[in-house]
Amino acid sequence: MTNEELMSIEKHLKTWTLEAAQLLKDSFQNTLTITYKSHIADLVTDMDKSIEKFFITKIQQTFPDHKVLGEEGYGDEIKGNSKGVIWIIDPIDGTTNFIHQQANFAISVGIYEDGIGKLGLIYDVEGSNLYFAKEGEGAYLNGKKLPRLEEVTLSESVVGVNATWVSPNRRINHEHVQQIIRKSRGSRSYGSAAIELAYVASGRLDAYMTLRLSPWDFAAGLILLNEVGAIVSRTDGEPVQLLEQNSILAAKPGLHKEMLDHLI
Amino acid sequence: MTNEELMSIEKHLKTWTLEAAQLLKDSFQNTLTITYKSHIADLVTDMDKSIEKFFITKIQQTFPDHKVLGEEGYGDEIKGNSKGVIWIIDPIDGTTNFIHQQANFAISVGIYEDGIGKLGLIYDVEGSNLYFAKEGEGAYLNGKKLPRLEEVTLSESVVGVNATWVSPNRRINHEHVQQIIRKSRGSRSYGSAAIELAYVASGRLDAYMTLRLSPWDFAAGLILLNEVGAIVSRTDGEPVQLLEQNSILAAKPGLHKEMLDHLI
Repeated sequence: MTNEELMSIEKHLKTWTLEAAQLLKDSFQNTLTITYKSHIADLVTDMDKSIEKFFITKIQQTFPDHKVLGEEGYGDEIKGNSKGVIWIIDPIDGTTNFIHQQANFAISVGIYEDGIGKLGLIYDVEGSNLYFAKEGEGAYLNGKKLPRLEEVTLSESVVGVNATWVSPNRRINHEHVQQIIRKSRGSRSYGSAAIELAYVASGRLDAYMTLRLSPWDFAAGLILLNEVGAIVSRTDGEPVQLLEQNSILAAKPGLHKEMLDHLI
Repeated sequence: MTNEELMSIEKHLKTWTLEAAQLLKDSFQNTLTITYKSHIADLVTDMDKSIEKFFITKIQQTFPDHKVLGEEGYGDEIKGNSKGVIWIIDPIDGTTNFIHQQANFAISVGIYEDGIGKLGLIYDVEGSNLYFAKEGEGAYLNGKKLPRLEEVTLSESVVGVNATWVSPNRRINHEHVQQIIRKSRGSRSYGSAAIELAYVASGRLDAYMTLRLSPWDFAAGLILLNEVGAIVSRTDGEPVQLLEQNSILAAKPGLHKEMLDHLI
C-alpha cells in the first residue's frame, strides 16, 4: 500500500482504539454494580464481542477490501492465507485482569500486508499508555520514540514469565525455566501478553516468554519489538508463524541467545 | 496518643511522603543520563539512604520522642522493643523495579504505638496512588474508602506469588506452592511487596504470599490489610512478628485458610 493509505489507516486505527477504550471504561460502571462473578464473566465476553464488532464494522465501512482476524471469531476466514491487508485484533488482552483489576488489560491491533507487519498498536487502557509502531519508522510510547534495545546478560535482566511455566506442565521442561529465573535478577508476571510484549519493547522487562499465544495476542507486539531491535522466536528457536498458535520468546539482543541456550 | 496527635502525624506523614516522592522522581533524570548498570545500582543506594535520612530528620525535628526503624539502618536501635511510637520506613520498596522500570516502586511507612498499628501509608510513586489506613477508621486509595474484602475460594482467585517460590528453594516446599497456582485462576508478580500488599487491600490481588520480608516491607501493609478485613499470618499459620523477618500470607477471608491448608 502507499504511504498515504498507511497514514489514513494509522489515523483511523488510533481514533477507533480510543473510542473502543472509552466503551471499555464505561463498562466498569456496570461491572461495579454486578455482584456475582459469573455475571462478570458474561459481561467480559459481551464486551470482548462488542469491541471486536465495533472494529469490524468500522473497518468494513472504511477499508472494504481489508480482512479481519479477531479473537472472538467475527472476522474473516483466513485459514493460513496472509495475502492482502489483515487487521489482527484482540479487543481485550488480559481478560482476567479486566475482571479482577480493571487495569493491566489492553486493546491490541496488528496490521499486516502480505504477511509483513505494517502498523502495531497496544493500548494499555487503564494506564492510558499507547504503544505504537510503524514499519521502518520506529516504535513510540505516547508519542515519544523508544530507543533501540541494547545487549544485556541474563544475570542483569528482569524476565517476564508466569509461574505456570515454572511448574510441571505439558509444554516445556519447567526445570529449564527455573534455571533461567535463578540466573536472572528477578521475574515478573502481569497477566497480559500484549502489555508484557510492550514492556519488552519499552525496556520495562528485558525479556518475556510464554508457551501458547494466538495471533491476536502477539500480532501487534511483534511489530513493536521489530522496530526496537528485540529478538523474537518461538521457545524452540524457530520463527514465529503469524497465523498460528506459537510459543514466544522475546528478548533483548544477547539475552535471547542466552535464554534459548537454557531452553533447548 | 491522642486523636489530635494522630491527626498531626498523619498530616506530616502525607506531606513528607509527597516531598520524598518528588525527590525520587527528580532522580530519574540522573538515572537516564547514567549508562552503566553498576552506577545505577549506586544511585539507588544513594537515593534509598537520602530518602531515609530525609524522613529521620523531619521526624526528629517534629516528633523528637518518636523512634525510627528503616531499611538503611540510620534509625534507632529497636532490638525487639516495640514500646513508644515507632515509624517503620522503607524509602524505596522495589529497588529492582526502580532501576529497571522507574515504576512499580513505593514509599512504605507504618507507624506503630506500643506494637499497635496506627497509620499505614504506601505510595506507588510512578502511579501516584496513595494507599492510606488509620486504625479503626478504614483504608483509602487516593481518598476513596476501600470496601471490606469478601470471602472467595482459591479457584476464583488471582494470587500474587513470585516464581522463585514455585522453584526449589530453601524456605518452602515449592510443590505446595505449585498446587496453589494450579488451583487458582492465575498468578501475578510485581516485584514490590508493599505494592502487592496494597493490591490485596484494594482487591487487585486476592492473595499475596512471600517467604522473607523485613519489618519495613510489611509494616504499612499490615495496617491497610487489617482495616479491610484481610487475614494475615506467616506461611506456617503463626502470627507475624512485627520487628522480625517473616514469611507473609495475606489473603481474603476463606482463601487464607484454603491456601494455608495447601502450605501446611
